[in-house]
Amino acid sequence: MAWGLDNLPYGVFSRREGETPRVGVRYGDHVVDLTGALHDEVFATGSLNAFLSRGPAAWRDTRALLRNKLSTDPAAVEPHLIPLDQVRLHLPIEVGDYVDFYCSLEHASNLGRMFRPDEEPLKPNWRHLPVGYHGRAGTVVVSGTPVTRPSGQRGAGVFGPSAKLDIEAELGFVVGTPTALGERAGRFEDHVFGVTLVNDWSARDIQAWEYVPLGPFLGKSFATSVSPWITPLDALSAARVEGRRQDPEPLGYLRREEPWGLDIRMEVAVNGEVVSRPPYRDMYWTPDQMLAHMTVNGARLRTGDLYASGTVSGAEPGERGSLIELTWNGGEPLKLSDGSTRAFLEDGDVVTITATAPGPDGGVISLGEVTGRIEPAR
Amino acid sequence: MAWGLDNLPYGVFSRREGETPRVGVRYGDHVVDLTGALHDEVFATGSLNAFLSRGPAAWRDTRALLRNKLSTDPAAVEPHLIPLDQVRLHLPIEVGDYVDFYCSLEHASNLGRMFRPDEEPLKPNWRHLPVGYHGRAGTVVVSGTPVTRPSGQRGAGVFGPSAKLDIEAELGFVVGTPTALGERAGRFEDHVFGVTLVNDWSARDIQAWEYVPLGPFLGKSFATSVSPWITPLDALSAARVEGRRQDPEPLGYLRREEPWGLDIRMEVAVNGEVVSRPPYRDMYWTPDQMLAHMTVNGARLRTGDLYASGTVSGAEPGERGSLIELTWNGGEPLKLSDGSTRAFLEDGDVVTITATAPGPDGGVISLGEVTGRIEPAR
Repeated sequence: MAWGLDNLPYGVFSRREGETPRVGVRYGDHVVDLTGALHDEVFATGSLNAFLSRGPAAWRDTRALLRNKLSTDPAAVEPHLIPLDQVRLHLPIEVGDYVDFYCSLEHASNLGRMFRPDEEPLKPNWRHLPVGYHGRAGTVVVSGTPVTRPSGQRGAGVFGPSAKLDIEAELGFVVGTPTALGERAGRFEDHVFGVTLVNDWSARDIQAWEYVPLGPFLGKSFATSVSPWITPLDALSAARVEGRRQDPEPLGYLRREEPWGLDIRMEVAVNGEVVSRPPYRDMYWTPDQMLAHMTVNGARLRTGDLYASGTVSGAEPGERGSLIELTWNGGEPLKLSDGSTRAFLEDGDVVTITATAPGPDGGVISLGEVTGRIEPAR
Repeated sequence: MAWGLDNLPYGVFSRREGETPRVGVRYGDHVVDLTGALHDEVFATGSLNAFLSRGPAAWRDTRALLRNKLSTDPAAVEPHLIPLDQVRLHLPIEVGDYVDFYCSLEHASNLGRMFRPDEEPLKPNWRHLPVGYHGRAGTVVVSGTPVTRPSGQRGAGVFGPSAKLDIEAELGFVVGTPTALGERAGRFEDHVFGVTLVNDWSARDIQAWEYVPLGPFLGKSFATSVSPWITPLDALSAARVEGRRQDPEPLGYLRREEPWGLDIRMEVAVNGEVVSRPPYRDMYWTPDQMLAHMTVNGARLRTGDLYASGTVSGAEPGERGSLIELTWNGGEPLKLSDGSTRAFLEDGDVVTITATAPGPDGGVISLGEVTGRIEPAR
């Protein structure tokens, strides 16, 4: 059962306009209202942050307690179950900093070939460190939020709505346990609470013009969508795999202590039609390595920090996590079953990214979806 | 008088360990406790954000009210004056997003020459838009916070403490009035509350290795220091000047409606010795243009967002706002009066940036200082 006892992801919901949102756990087609079910006001604070700041022992205890109640005393939980179709889902965390990495060898190579055709596709640093940059935390929005086509500069003296609006299918990691300024993070599982699906919307024409030398800015900062359910790492134990082999051997601070590759299978659909199946297990850099890198200089973590993997692209053409790769910068448009073609996104298009992971005993865990509809430029 | 009625900058202070910090205004060598002096609990909330979110009419009214009380009824304010040496100053805002621009023609040209000696110093986009990127909001710290020398990768397989620790003398702009997702910002003075001094500490060796193709990351994210006093725009009316002439003429959305160049004179001191005098008025892109650019794609503003100008460097050698420029990447070390030399910062060094602006009637406004001491790598 995709939303059963082995899953139990966390989100934030409200039942009425104006009600302070509260934390719930998804169970089947219901939300468990944790404030009531567990008699704990930490879940009535509008976001997951207060709960996340309690740390990994509290995360484990809460999960164990809820699983126990649901399996041994369902009648006690029943008054706190709310049908999904009666709630509105909100952004589950107050985002501290948002960092986006670039961890797929295939994605980085593909973009290098397109953006810098005269050079080696990978820059010299790429195999030595997980390249990343800070994105705009204030425009991280929950799945379902409409995405307005951004306007901007697309070249010298050229201004207008982006003509190359794209997606990036990514996996995001939510930080629970903070660090002090000047300290490095400890073990991945002591800091990171869980994962979310991310669509890092991208305006490729704006990005291509602006990104040298300081990186992407307005080509990304108009919106980043995340799924409403945060899947705890504890639900992903059956999905853990060795990371991909790395050459050269990374420096000591990037050495993997535990297998934190994740066998998460993603699907990207445009207007309901699947156009790609990106395999997260093929990523080059693993999330424990991203965390170690992000904090090796003493940068502080805060509860609610979010970092994402970068576009998930596999080696096969049908495994690429962005349209710019799937259509090779628009030159080979996708043919959709309604007869239309897509180089990049059109107004009214709906993009939905879904994912699943292996659960215990051969089951499947759903990571839900992140979806958004393109609104015309203003 | 540098801290008189024409200045009145805002900060956040506490008198005792454990006390919730509250908003004060600097007046001479005292802090006016606004919660008491103006009978308003918005100032007792731990940061300036709640007050800033009230918007420009409230900012103006509060300033007028305080000026009036201080000049016509000082006895009523007197019980709410606390000597500066009895308070601890805190980070004045909860920072939403932090964006760093790159607005000095001379700085961008100097860095281009050093980082990319085989190319034109300015990238093709530089004169068309204010280049910028997101920095780490969670490591913005108040003046006086010690800065630990960061460690990181300085090349392929090379790890260790940065050997090129540097400063960047900048001016920061604090956003008060938010926008909705998908909207552009309106007039600069309706959104931006005031200015702060910024030292954007930089590890040049880490930055040079990591920054392609997605921009600076760990070379910057370990610390960004800001001055404790936010000078309201209303205190800077005598400092306003036309911005520098721009060629080519910027696109419509970047057109200047009002003169928002600022005649702010900065000084950079290493261990008490002035090594540079960066002139803010010589900046190419003005702060209203940065704001217009940052939001032209519909990126939302939040109360507490901070954006900075990038290093302020003038055309003269003694006007450069970073050591990498002052010493030409370490090749021409500074000679200090104690007989020592500096290519980059050493452990124990104290860097202090101060600034002043013209006040009304020939007076001078102090923008205070942002200072920090380098602690050895851990």
